[in-house]
Amino acid sequence: MGMNQTPASERVHISFFGKRNAGKSSVINAVTGQDLAIVSSVMGTTTDPVYKTMELLPLGPVMVIDTPGIDDEGELGALRIRKSYQVLNKTDIAILVIDSTAGKGEEELELIHRFHKKGIPYLIVYNKIDLLSTEKIKDLAMSVRAGEVLVSASDGMNIQELKEKIASLKPEDTHKYPLIQDLIDPLDLVILVVPIDKAAPKGRLILPQQQTIRDILERGALSLVVRDTELKSTLDHFLAQGVCPKLVVTDSQAFARVSKAVPENITLTSFSILFSRYKGELETQLKGIAALSSIEDGDRILIAEGCTHHRQCGDIGTCKMPEWIRNYTGKKPVFEFTSGTEFPDDVSSYKMVIHCGGCMLNEREMKYRIACCQDQGVPITNYGILIAQVTGILKRSLGPFPEMQKLI
Amino acid sequence: MGMNQTPASERVHISFFGKRNAGKSSVINAVTGQDLAIVSSVMGTTTDPVYKTMELLPLGPVMVIDTPGIDDEGELGALRIRKSYQVLNKTDIAILVIDSTAGKGEEELELIHRFHKKGIPYLIVYNKIDLLSTEKIKDLAMSVRAGEVLVSASDGMNIQELKEKIASLKPEDTHKYPLIQDLIDPLDLVILVVPIDKAAPKGRLILPQQQTIRDILERGALSLVVRDTELKSTLDHFLAQGVCPKLVVTDSQAFARVSKAVPENITLTSFSILFSRYKGELETQLKGIAALSSIEDGDRILIAEGCTHHRQCGDIGTCKMPEWIRNYTGKKPVFEFTSGTEFPDDVSSYKMVIHCGGCMLNEREMKYRIACCQDQGVPITNYGILIAQVTGILKRSLGPFPEMQKLI
Repeated sequence: MGMNQTPASERVHISFFGKRNAGKSSVINAVTGQDLAIVSSVMGTTTDPVYKTMELLPLGPVMVIDTPGIDDEGELGALRIRKSYQVLNKTDIAILVIDSTAGKGEEELELIHRFHKKGIPYLIVYNKIDLLSTEKIKDLAMSVRAGEVLVSASDGMNIQELKEKIASLKPEDTHKYPLIQDLIDPLDLVILVVPIDKAAPKGRLILPQQQTIRDILERGALSLVVRDTELKSTLDHFLAQGVCPKLVVTDSQAFARVSKAVPENITLTSFSILFSRYKGELETQLKGIAALSSIEDGDRILIAEGCTHHRQCGDIGTCKMPEWIRNYTGKKPVFEFTSGTEFPDDVSSYKMVIHCGGCMLNEREMKYRIACCQDQGVPITNYGILIAQVTGILKRSLGPFPEMQKLI
Repeated sequence: MGMNQTPASERVHISFFGKRNAGKSSVINAVTGQDLAIVSSVMGTTTDPVYKTMELLPLGPVMVIDTPGIDDEGELGALRIRKSYQVLNKTDIAILVIDSTAGKGEEELELIHRFHKKGIPYLIVYNKIDLLSTEKIKDLAMSVRAGEVLVSASDGMNIQELKEKIASLKPEDTHKYPLIQDLIDPLDLVILVVPIDKAAPKGRLILPQQQTIRDILERGALSLVVRDTELKSTLDHFLAQGVCPKLVVTDSQAFARVSKAVPENITLTSFSILFSRYKGELETQLKGIAALSSIEDGDRILIAEGCTHHRQCGDIGTCKMPEWIRNYTGKKPVFEFTSGTEFPDDVSSYKMVIHCGGCMLNEREMKYRIACCQDQGVPITNYGILIAQVTGILKRSLGPFPEMQKLI
C-alpha cells in the first residue's frame, strides 16, 4: 500500500500537459510505474485534472497531476483546457508531452509561453519515438536541446533518463525566514497552545502544529503542548517553580483567552503568524488587514479556503469570519466564498480577500493567489491575522517581530 | 483538492467485491461521486486491488477498495481472485455487487460464506435494476432482505439509500485499553522523547507521536516534547526546579540511552508498548519475544512491515533488526522480509515473526496477521518489544503495567 502521510502542501507538484493523443497517461505510467502497488493511473473523470500522490525517487514525495488535453474541443473542451491552465498555478515542474509523429503545434507553443511567463521549470518530452523511422529519430536526436527528451512510453525507452531530468528540476527550498528556530535557543521552553474542540481532527495534530514541534526539536529546544483550558494552571505552576517559557505560540482561535492567561512579559504569538512569516507573506497580510477599517455596507469580501473537506476551515470561513467582521466593522459587507482549487482570476471586484492559512495548498499556488490580489490592487490577509485584529491582540502577537509591529 | 491527511490505519476500509460484469466500478463511482474533486475512479492496473482514500459522509475518512472480479479466468485470473480474497483481511465493511440481470451465483455464495467466517459486516447490492422489467423489479423488491439493496448505478437510483446503509455498518471503536489516559491525571507532565535522525520524516511527527500528544491533551495533561540528545539536561533542570514528570515515553530506538538518563524512580515506557497495549496485542507480543532465547543457527525468522515506502521502517527491518538479533542470540538465523500487503498465509515454517508497529495497517489486518501466527503456533512480536529485549530494558519499559511484567 505505501500510503504516505506527507501532506499535499509539502510535495513537489509535477504536472503533465499535452494534447489528447500525445500519450500523456502512458508517459505518466512509465515514469511512475516502477512500483505497481502505488501506481494506479487515475482515470474516470476526464473533466478535471487528476492528482496522484506518490513517492518518486530520487525526488521523494510528489504530487503527479494529469491534465486534460490542451486541444480538447467544444464548450466542455474549452472548460477543460482552462482547467489545465489553472494547474500551472500550483505546478513546481511542468512536463509537456508531444507526439513526436505529429510535432510541436500552436497549443504547445502557447503552453511553453505560459511556462516562461510563470517561471516554471519544464521539460519537453517527445513521446512515441518507437513509431518513427530510424532516420527521423536521428534527425530529432540531432536537434534535441537541453530540456528536451525523446522517449517511448510504450517500450520504456529513455524513461530512466526522463526521471533523472525531472529530478534535476526539483525546486530549491526558498524560505527566506525560518519557522521558529531563530526566535529560540537550545533548551528554551516553548509553550504550544492547542485547543481540542470538535473540529480538531481525531487522533492527530494538524500540520502547522507538527511542523512547529519539529522545528523546535531541531533547534534542541523544548515544546510543552497544552490545551487552552489548562494553560493558566500550567503557567502558574511552572512560573512558581521558576521555569519560564521563552515563547508561547497559540492557535489563533484561542488568542484572546490565551492572551489574558500569559503575563505581559512573556512573548506570545500564533501559529498563523509564524507560518505567515515563514512563507514570506506576513508583510503583505499585515498591509492587507488595514482594509478592514474602511469596509462599508455592501462591499464585497472574498473568503477563500485551500481545502474542500476540512470541516474546521469550513466552519471558520463561512460562519465565524463573517460574524467577526460584521461585529468588528459594524457594517454589512457581502461575503463570497471559494474553496479548494477554485480561486477567481479576477478579484478586482472585491474590497478585500481573506484567505485561510493555505496549509493544503502548495506554496506556488498560495504565492500565485497573493500575486493575483497584489496585481489587481486588492488587499489580502489571512484568517489568523484577521482574528488577531478583531480580538485586539494583533500588536501583541507580533511581539517576536518588532519591525512588523510598525506596519500596523 | 481536499487532500486529506487521515492515515490509512484510521480509515474505515470499505471493499467492493463482485464479478467482472457486475458494475462494481459504476457503483463505486455512484456512491463516491458526490464530490467530483475527490472522486476519481482509479483504474489502469486491473491486476491489483485499487485503493482510494476519500471523505464519505457521514462515515468520514474512508478507504474505498476496488477488487478484481471474483470470476476472472486463467492463471492470472486466479491470482486476481486470490488478491480479492486477501483484501477481506483488512475489510471493515464489505459490499458485494451483483448484476441483478444475472443473479447470485456460486462465486457470490462463496464470498458471502467468507464474510460470515471472518465476521465482516456486509451489504448485497443488486445493480443494473434499470435493465429489469417493472415486473421483475417488483419481484426482486418483494424478496429483498435487510442487508440487501436494489440500485442502478447508471441512473443513480437508490444510491443515497445505499450510502446510508453503508454508513450504518460503521464499526464501533473496539479498543479495550486507552492509549495513555488511564496512566495520567490532569496537569500531569509527560515527557515524550522524539529523536530526530535522517529517517524522521521532514517537517512532521510520525503518527504514534501525534496520537500520544493528542491523547495527553484530551486528558488535560501536558506533553513535553524533547529530543533524546537534550533529555538529560532538560530532566536535570526540571527536577532541580521541583518539576517532576509523571511518565517518560520514548521512541524504542532511543530506549537504551533514554533509560540511562531517566532516574529509576520515574516511570519509563515506549510508544511501541503503549500502542501494543492500546491495540490489545501486548500480551501476545510479550509471549512472542520469549522465542528469541531459543533461536538456533539456520532458524527462519520473518521480519514483516506494513508499509512499503517508509524508509525508517525499511532501515530498521532489513538492517538493524537482523544485526540486533544476531548480536543478542549469538546465532545466525535466516531472515526473510515482507512489506506492504504481502504477508504469507502460511507462516508455519518460521521460528518467529517480528512485525513493525503496523501504523500503516488498519487494525483488522494487523489482528488477522497476529491470528495467522497464533493459529499456526508461531510466536509473533513487534519491533519495539524486540528492541527493548535486546537492549535489556524490557522489564523497565513495562513499568506502567506491572501485570505484564510478570509475563516476561
